[in-house]
Amino acid sequence: MTESSPSAAPVSEVLSVPERVLLGPGPSMVNPRVLQAMMQNMIGYLDPDYVLMLEDVSGLLGDVFQTGDAATMALSGTGSAGMEAGLSSLLEPGDTVIVCICGFFGERMVDMATRVGANVVALRSEWGKTFPPEMLSDALEENPDVKLVAIIHAETSTGVRQPLEDISRLAREHGALFMVDAVTSLGGNNLSFDEWDIDYSYSATQKCLGCPPGLSPVAVSQRALDSIRSRETPPTSWYLDLSLNANYWYSPRVYHHTSPVSMVLALREGLRIVVEEGLENRFARHERNAAALRAGLEALGMEVVPPEDARLAQVTPVWIPEGVDDAEVRARLLSEYNIEIGKGLGQFDGKVWRFGLMGESSRADYVLLSLSALENILPTVGYEVAPGAAVSAASKTLASV
Amino acid sequence: MTESSPSAAPVSEVLSVPERVLLGPGPSMVNPRVLQAMMQNMIGYLDPDYVLMLEDVSGLLGDVFQTGDAATMALSGTGSAGMEAGLSSLLEPGDTVIVCICGFFGERMVDMATRVGANVVALRSEWGKTFPPEMLSDALEENPDVKLVAIIHAETSTGVRQPLEDISRLAREHGALFMVDAVTSLGGNNLSFDEWDIDYSYSATQKCLGCPPGLSPVAVSQRALDSIRSRETPPTSWYLDLSLNANYWYSPRVYHHTSPVSMVLALREGLRIVVEEGLENRFARHERNAAALRAGLEALGMEVVPPEDARLAQVTPVWIPEGVDDAEVRARLLSEYNIEIGKGLGQFDGKVWRFGLMGESSRADYVLLSLSALENILPTVGYEVAPGAAVSAASKTLASV
Repeated sequence: MTESSPSAAPVSEVLSVPERVLLGPGPSMVNPRVLQAMMQNMIGYLDPDYVLMLEDVSGLLGDVFQTGDAATMALSGTGSAGMEAGLSSLLEPGDTVIVCICGFFGERMVDMATRVGANVVALRSEWGKTFPPEMLSDALEENPDVKLVAIIHAETSTGVRQPLEDISRLAREHGALFMVDAVTSLGGNNLSFDEWDIDYSYSATQKCLGCPPGLSPVAVSQRALDSIRSRETPPTSWYLDLSLNANYWYSPRVYHHTSPVSMVLALREGLRIVVEEGLENRFARHERNAAALRAGLEALGMEVVPPEDARLAQVTPVWIPEGVDDAEVRARLLSEYNIEIGKGLGQFDGKVWRFGLMGESSRADYVLLSLSALENILPTVGYEVAPGAAVSAASKTLASV
Repeated sequence: MTESSPSAAPVSEVLSVPERVLLGPGPSMVNPRVLQAMMQNMIGYLDPDYVLMLEDVSGLLGDVFQTGDAATMALSGTGSAGMEAGLSSLLEPGDTVIVCICGFFGERMVDMATRVGANVVALRSEWGKTFPPEMLSDALEENPDVKLVAIIHAETSTGVRQPLEDISRLAREHGALFMVDAVTSLGGNNLSFDEWDIDYSYSATQKCLGCPPGLSPVAVSQRALDSIRSRETPPTSWYLDLSLNANYWYSPRVYHHTSPVSMVLALREGLRIVVEEGLENRFARHERNAAALRAGLEALGMEVVPPEDARLAQVTPVWIPEGVDDAEVRARLLSEYNIEIGKGLGQFDGKVWRFGLMGESSRADYVLLSLSALENILPTVGYEVAPGAAVSAASKTLASV
């Protein structure tokens, strides 16, 4: 019997990953430097050289979250793990949390917070618009003992960018901790953790950071860490306990669980690329390509879901034109052009398409390619378009910005 | 402003991962085929081609867990996430769980089960020995309403392989579900999910499967899934809810969270390699290399912790010789020979070294290299050894098996 594995025949269907252009709500394209970084040698989770890399990741995350004091680290799960880490670490059974909801992912917060035994006040406003601070103000008056206010910064389901300044101020005035979902915003639009007085924010690697999915970068204020460390009962989740995770990412660096080394190496490279490009440049790139995409989609006669002053650059949802088959168009974009776009979630299922231009996917050539593909497909499914109009409108926008 | 990232100067210390020989309790070495598979193109988590790959992984995991009926999938977290998924999905607040403990990781189960509100009966037996079924038998008589019995199959902290047949029979006789930690056993020694009537088992990718850390492969019996689906309250963890995860890995394939695509691609390749080698061949390889390592360590005058009939092939703990500095020897193995071995955990901290020979790390050349390095280092820290004795004993064993 040999020591090494034989280079034998495949045991299941041979299938390599097709080359997709990922223009959905994530995962997005991955920078080749990130892929290279990810396939380095394996290393132990307490190896002195690996600890240096953890420090790099913490420091770079501090830059990207725009924070000086917060603990910054990457949790070993996807963005949803970051959401659960916050709710389960910051809330004890019976604690009151106010969740500000104007889309699909706000409802996920309600589900998670309910599971950990919190008293959940769910404030539901209209999908496709920003959440109105007045709703929060009223709810805070009615719930003076509130422990936490939580909100989504960039709602991937509706394409809305939520202003956070007023929400933050209200939370602070009532002594509540403030939690922000930055899954789709971090690295794509401005997120000022310190300036906006945020206590906990979490993101994901596969949206605007140009990495594969699998980690949740987080920032935790010292106030939030103090709150966790003075809980009467431990968080329901051991795996996602922010205090235990911080004890590995920072002194005393005690073993908690085996760090997902390859993903951390990938994230380190992804963050280096973000900082090299510069946050302002990166945000401007996202805005420019989104403006071009919107111009093209509007030239096709489609209507962008959120009002003009509330639009995310990262995700653009449009109403699916009357009579056009949602699934057929998405399937043909994939099979004929290798382009993935997103379907609607929740109450927008079957009603909207979502175009993601995030991180490495935010490129002018992808904008033009996707509009060209739509110009070709739509007339064959009963929706007439003026040939070349979309690509022309997008090109004009690209030239003018 | 350019569209692509400039190939600019590094923003943090340039540092590539050193080439380590990983002979600790994990992560272990990664097969180069796995690294190649991991750096394929990114793809959407509901892309038809990706769904085929998920099916491959499920099927291969069924082979490796040796189960026909169980749901097999990979959770998006490390082995500890698999532990928490089981305890939080199978237990409701107030449910009784009996945890059979003879090492560090049994205590982790107690911590997690307590956090989800279960009534935890912790049975503690001596570290370094197998857990005696009589203890469980007595506890079952005293707790007739027990919902779950949980145990570690391969205790990485003590190097003990736990026989499971009697434990399983006792759990079944008392109507309890049976949960097995296979983090260090899956792919390294026999684990017969169906034959041993297991309801839930979880593992990790970085031990005997030759992959990077980051996923927890699990098997869930239909009986366990039925139990979860008839809970009165939802599991405390949404992210690790086994039922929600199964709804993505199997029909109706609804979105739960973004699948960590690259890690799943890596696992698919790792599992193909396991099945190509063949489980029996793989177990024999682990036994052979462990026998050689033990012969070498004993020739150095060191004593293996567990008794002969309870030893794991994957992890060999030895008592650190009197007067020898634990940390110094490990640091010198790392700095002079690039070899990582493991330190003791919990009550074995500072008392044992742990040598892991798992998956891709279970190789004859690594056995000889590590023994040679010890032969060189030990005399310089005040512990005399007969030159060449360890390597010679190991070589003799390798030749005879």
